[in-house]
Amino acid sequence: GRTTGSNGEIIVCKLSDKRRVTVSLFKGKVYVGIREYYEKEGEMLPTQKGISLSVDQWKKFKEAVPDIQDIIKQRL
Amino acid sequence: GRTTGSNGEIIVCKLSDKRRVTVSLFKGKVYVGIREYYEKEGEMLPTQKGISLSVDQWKKFKEAVPDIQDIIKQRL
Repeated sequence: GRTTGSNGEIIVCKLSDKRRVTVSLFKGKVYVGIREYYEKEGEMLPTQKGISLSVDQWKKFKEAVPDIQDIIKQRL
Repeated sequence: GRTTGSNGEIIVCKLSDKRRVTVSLFKGKVYVGIREYYEKEGEMLPTQKGISLSVDQWKKFKEAVPDIQDIIKQRL
């Protein structure tokens, strides 16, 4: 089964020790989260440093991935 | 040429009226930003609601894109 966080979100991957990419369900809608977490009493809890994307925003972001990669490779 | 923001960052795309994906150079390092902005005196300025990914974090995130898409399609 998948790894879930303290709020029931699916942890898709870790970007760093404290940063996670998640998919969650909130009030009937799906959100993709990219967020920093902190540890408290053995749990990893979300901080304000991050953003939750709606599915529409996620689609736009996904479409931008090749452009982002091009810009990075061109070294700005 | 590309659209740039108030801090010289490259605006790759808009996710919503206030949310942008950017690529920036800061102290010699490249960052991918996903952030909410607010309007002040005709400029769009960044808020704390967002995250800046290092290139290593960006690579991990990019690799996770197919998994995120699978999870969304499976409707959790």
